[in-house]
Amino acid sequence: MKQLSRLIQCVFSSRTAVLSFRSLTYSCILQKKESANNELSSDWGRGKRAEKRQNFIRKLIMDNPEIETTLAPLRVSVKEQGDLVRKLKEEKAPDLDLQRAVAELKIRKRNLEETELKLTPKDDFDRHKMEDLLKQRFFYDQSFAIYGGVNGLYDFGPMGCAMKANLLQLWRKFFVLEEQMLEIESAMLTPAQVLKASGHVDRFQDYMVKDLKNGECFRADHLIEAYLEKLLTDKKLSEDKKNEARKLLPMIDGMNMNDMKETLIKYNMKSPVTGNDLSDPIEFNLMFATSIGPTGQLKGFLRPETAQGIFVNFKRLLGFNSGKLPFAGAQIGNSFRNEISPRSGLIRVREFTMAEIEHFCDPDDKSHPKFENVADLKVMLYSACSQMDGKSAEAWTIGEAVGKKLIANQTLGYFMARIYLFLNKVGVDPKRLRFRQHLSNEMAHYACDCWDAEMKTSYGWIECVGCADRSCYDLTQHTEATGVKLVAERKLSEPKTIDVTELQPQMGVLGKAFKKDAKLVSEYLNKLKTEDVLTIEKNLSENKESTVTVNDKDYKLTPEMITVKRYQKTVHVEELTPSVIEPSFGIGRIMYSVFEHNFKVREGDEQRSYLSLPASIAPYKCSVLPISNNPDFGIHIKNISQALNQNDISHKVDDSSGSIGRRYARTDQIAIPYGITIDFDTLKDTPPTATLRERDSMKQIRASLNELPQIVKDLVDGKRTWEDITNNYPLFEQQETTK
Amino acid sequence: MKQLSRLIQCVFSSRTAVLSFRSLTYSCILQKKESANNELSSDWGRGKRAEKRQNFIRKLIMDNPEIETTLAPLRVSVKEQGDLVRKLKEEKAPDLDLQRAVAELKIRKRNLEETELKLTPKDDFDRHKMEDLLKQRFFYDQSFAIYGGVNGLYDFGPMGCAMKANLLQLWRKFFVLEEQMLEIESAMLTPAQVLKASGHVDRFQDYMVKDLKNGECFRADHLIEAYLEKLLTDKKLSEDKKNEARKLLPMIDGMNMNDMKETLIKYNMKSPVTGNDLSDPIEFNLMFATSIGPTGQLKGFLRPETAQGIFVNFKRLLGFNSGKLPFAGAQIGNSFRNEISPRSGLIRVREFTMAEIEHFCDPDDKSHPKFENVADLKVMLYSACSQMDGKSAEAWTIGEAVGKKLIANQTLGYFMARIYLFLNKVGVDPKRLRFRQHLSNEMAHYACDCWDAEMKTSYGWIECVGCADRSCYDLTQHTEATGVKLVAERKLSEPKTIDVTELQPQMGVLGKAFKKDAKLVSEYLNKLKTEDVLTIEKNLSENKESTVTVNDKDYKLTPEMITVKRYQKTVHVEELTPSVIEPSFGIGRIMYSVFEHNFKVREGDEQRSYLSLPASIAPYKCSVLPISNNPDFGIHIKNISQALNQNDISHKVDDSSGSIGRRYARTDQIAIPYGITIDFDTLKDTPPTATLRERDSMKQIRASLNELPQIVKDLVDGKRTWEDITNNYPLFEQQETTK
Repeated sequence: MKQLSRLIQCVFSSRTAVLSFRSLTYSCILQKKESANNELSSDWGRGKRAEKRQNFIRKLIMDNPEIETTLAPLRVSVKEQGDLVRKLKEEKAPDLDLQRAVAELKIRKRNLEETELKLTPKDDFDRHKMEDLLKQRFFYDQSFAIYGGVNGLYDFGPMGCAMKANLLQLWRKFFVLEEQMLEIESAMLTPAQVLKASGHVDRFQDYMVKDLKNGECFRADHLIEAYLEKLLTDKKLSEDKKNEARKLLPMIDGMNMNDMKETLIKYNMKSPVTGNDLSDPIEFNLMFATSIGPTGQLKGFLRPETAQGIFVNFKRLLGFNSGKLPFAGAQIGNSFRNEISPRSGLIRVREFTMAEIEHFCDPDDKSHPKFENVADLKVMLYSACSQMDGKSAEAWTIGEAVGKKLIANQTLGYFMARIYLFLNKVGVDPKRLRFRQHLSNEMAHYACDCWDAEMKTSYGWIECVGCADRSCYDLTQHTEATGVKLVAERKLSEPKTIDVTELQPQMGVLGKAFKKDAKLVSEYLNKLKTEDVLTIEKNLSENKESTVTVNDKDYKLTPEMITVKRYQKTVHVEELTPSVIEPSFGIGRIMYSVFEHNFKVREGDEQRSYLSLPASIAPYKCSVLPISNNPDFGIHIKNISQALNQNDISHKVDDSSGSIGRRYARTDQIAIPYGITIDFDTLKDTPPTATLRERDSMKQIRASLNELPQIVKDLVDGKRTWEDITNNYPLFEQQETTK
Repeated sequence: MKQLSRLIQCVFSSRTAVLSFRSLTYSCILQKKESANNELSSDWGRGKRAEKRQNFIRKLIMDNPEIETTLAPLRVSVKEQGDLVRKLKEEKAPDLDLQRAVAELKIRKRNLEETELKLTPKDDFDRHKMEDLLKQRFFYDQSFAIYGGVNGLYDFGPMGCAMKANLLQLWRKFFVLEEQMLEIESAMLTPAQVLKASGHVDRFQDYMVKDLKNGECFRADHLIEAYLEKLLTDKKLSEDKKNEARKLLPMIDGMNMNDMKETLIKYNMKSPVTGNDLSDPIEFNLMFATSIGPTGQLKGFLRPETAQGIFVNFKRLLGFNSGKLPFAGAQIGNSFRNEISPRSGLIRVREFTMAEIEHFCDPDDKSHPKFENVADLKVMLYSACSQMDGKSAEAWTIGEAVGKKLIANQTLGYFMARIYLFLNKVGVDPKRLRFRQHLSNEMAHYACDCWDAEMKTSYGWIECVGCADRSCYDLTQHTEATGVKLVAERKLSEPKTIDVTELQPQMGVLGKAFKKDAKLVSEYLNKLKTEDVLTIEKNLSENKESTVTVNDKDYKLTPEMITVKRYQKTVHVEELTPSVIEPSFGIGRIMYSVFEHNFKVREGDEQRSYLSLPASIAPYKCSVLPISNNPDFGIHIKNISQALNQNDISHKVDDSSGSIGRRYARTDQIAIPYGITIDFDTLKDTPPTATLRERDSMKQIRASLNELPQIVKDLVDGKRTWEDITNNYPLFEQQETTK
């Protein structure tokens, strides 16, 4: 997902134009809008950064419709200019005119975004306070801190680790088990060849500049942007210069190495930290390199995504599925990315866990048998067209969105719905969740439609799950690189007779002419496609010779070396390269969003913060607290703890001194949803009873100790609600003392 | 664990002698045997290979007492020579005499081992057949096979992956939850500094030689050994030459780089593959190197064990545990090791999953509160003394073994028992499981006692879990490297008054003398230990000056620069560096052993192999099979599948054509323990019924469809036995057709 977006922002190939046109077919043309996807063509391939800025600016807008009154005229202005750009494109106007119009469009969009930001009310969320809690209770923290720490590496402590394990267990149940997916676990060490074929070696890169004195590195685009933004705040600078900077800002993401170099020189930019001179921009591959084996000859990388491990196992998985389509491979595992300047906590890191699904299906049939189950689910969609027209996200049912071709096909829609349901289950606030469609200039070279599940956080909208139709790109690439056909077979509705044209090499003649290379040449000739056979045949008949190149060496063929054989054969199946729909989850990012969406402060007591995580992913499900250190409580604590273990309920006994209120506050901080308290009534009652407290409402009931493990289990499994419990057991009233 | 053994075989420091003497105290002296641990001192540090060979040779001996008659005189001969070595050591005999005696001892041990091997009856286990099954049903297979494959890297397919997830889930429940351990997840990318401190950068290495023409690499010790062994089979070779080779063989593991070089030259050894000349031996670090961040300045490695991630988080974990000892950190995760020539399938790989526990406790109190729970458990112990006396493993209760100090302490014994119980639970055959104590020459420099849980497989006895007392080594090393005190506090039984001697720098004078360095010097002086303060005081009074070195720069102190302050203070706590007991699980090796121990062939049908995995780790718990493709079965299949999902029972529907017998055979191959079959009686009965089949007995019962999910759940959870089920439901008799 992370990687996907990297590819998306970094890559560009001639395929893009073709595929993004296809995306256009689905998302825009069918909505009667024309060629809208080309307006941003001048920043092909590096649109992500601009988009992030937009996200940040659009932050919170969704919930505040009153702002719209002010924004409406600005939106109109964006749309007018957008329409002009479309018109110029249609009319094939001169490039210069088009570029000017695009630049103006970007200025208008920026103006809209800045106004949005100003109007957006400030959130009262205190990130610093939340991060304090997460650090203090060791959900996660920087790795190797005693050695000074390493940027972009985080260790999960007991609470983070348990939460993550629960989240992944839930993921496995929700996707792998319920959908009968084929989960695999492939190697992280990956030979360079594989990542060459997948496109990562060539395209997975950023530009950086180095401080020439101390070697500190900066991402070139970030540095230029920060510089220009600072310029704009300079009161002494002339309006002309400011306009120049304003025009340049939206161009940064489209800059190539040379553009960046010229900009750095023009503005004489220095290191923002030391003021030292900077190097020219340098291309930097984001993968961690290593070599496998002792010879140092097998170059490898740490995988930048788990997806490739599924693709290279495609044949085995197809076999496991008895050769039938569709099926999905899935993988949970770590990936690595050598960020130039990691920041934003868990959001941009160098080592991270992903959970990816590759659903292989017939490219001509992307329907999904369970689509009806989710067709009525309503989600917020922020389509490519809405983005280009300056509009906001809109609520759609998945059924409508697929029906109107806003979402390209049923399978993509089905997975978007499942993603939504899963995120909901693990504690993402549905009001802060939207699906944003990739613009054509962000779309990876292989994708024909792509939606990101984005979560609203204090960092803006961040993509946490990608859901892309990768078409047949990856399987085709690996087939080309290895010669191993990664295809499935489709039974024809009726047998088909086909014409076959083959070359038959005459080994005797070839042998005389090419000696030891004859075998190589004949193998090459045997594998030729029909059109190549025809070309050679034509050359031989017209010129009496035809040259072929095998392993970089030319061989001149003459007519006596080959015979062309033509015949017919009946086939019952045809081969096809499956399409791939890929839902790809960034686990750390989801966890971070869940933290933000569930960080709460008790009303009237700012010091008392807590995490309202759903019980299913809470690190512990239950606490067990003796109300004082009376030794008579010991046996009850031990018994209830054993009973909870027998019911597989993870729990924490807190028999430390501190008042009961303070201990409740502590368990609330680590998100323990239920708490059993042994008090003096426990000793009096027959059978012994205890109180059960719910974290969010802080309400308590009283029940017998024997019943409590089952009650907690039912609550955690979602078989009973807290409301149901409070209706069936006596409420217990007691003031929680916080000191 | 893997790494541990690597360290064990690769490292040697002056500590070893001290610590291994301590080990001796526990395991031998207290059993009234003296100084036995020094007889193998000539191959300090590289004893692992010999030990593996011994394992292979000792293979299967345990179960065949009749062989003992033949072996008895050979054992006596080993013991006699062992005693001679001990005597010579005691008498401090000349080195040359001792070396000769040790060489003779090794020859006798080798003779014993070879005889053992010859006498051992051949196992009828067919590894090839098992591996075929595992490959065919995609439990695991070589990674990147379509790219030609990479040695030492394996991908787990759906079956292997599900089994592994189940095994890890069980591990988490058995250790982390039941023992309330603090699980963490730390980064795999590790800065070189950290691994320098832990000893891995300096000591984690092997020697290799390169084919000078094609660059192919070989482990030098393996190559020399194979060469000498081949010599011994040469009928033309003189007995003298053979004796020379025989004497050299046991020495290989003790060879340093120069010894290896001389041996290679003496025998004029060539590449066994091409016959080409070989390079001199080269030291080769087994860690995968990479660099972190864009500057290339932060050198890093992929972690070779997960343990260090726990040590560097010690302070946070201690804090999480409210500063109290004992507590255990735990981690499940991947580690990496760049093997020179990986082989033996899952046993020696380059990327593997470990599950490690670091139990931190008071070095003066290694008792365990739950020790009584396991004291009566009987396990096979193969002590260091037994190994040196040519004896076999013996059955001990954990209680006796700790009581007699064979196992160093209660906590170590407790964990060995828990390891035994866990392995048993996941399907290891207890008859093929023993604990082997490390000999002093194998023991890592930090360890004071170490036992490996070894599993008997077709590769010999392989270590799958290590259980070591690492003493305070790691925490001390990281403290030294970082200056961060990794200690806990112990409350004193009564407050203690201590004398304090401190230097008080006179800042004014210092400032004049050292200018901007004054602060640095004063900080240095403030931190000095008492003995250093006294030295400086003495120098100043005797010589009127004293020189200190701070950051490689000398500073001359004069008497007026400092005051020595002496006072008393009362302390209530003392600091201590905890000892660490480390159970360390190699997950891939455990899985491999479990495969071997559970690979079965149906009596009378050699083609019908299956895996009798315990239900708890079986990839799927249940199969659902319609007896034919009658469309009326569809609704029942769907209903039962949904009901199983609701009960969290992973299952596989197999509605492919094939006869029911063939489909049963297929589900047996992937270890599905229970199978529900929908047949024509299902359609007739009210309420509908189906059959339930158990994999190992192939017996079937009939029950109503409504009941079946709960029955299967109870069986899988171990709440009911299959016997109990067969006693309560009517048996269903039907011939299984295999064709």
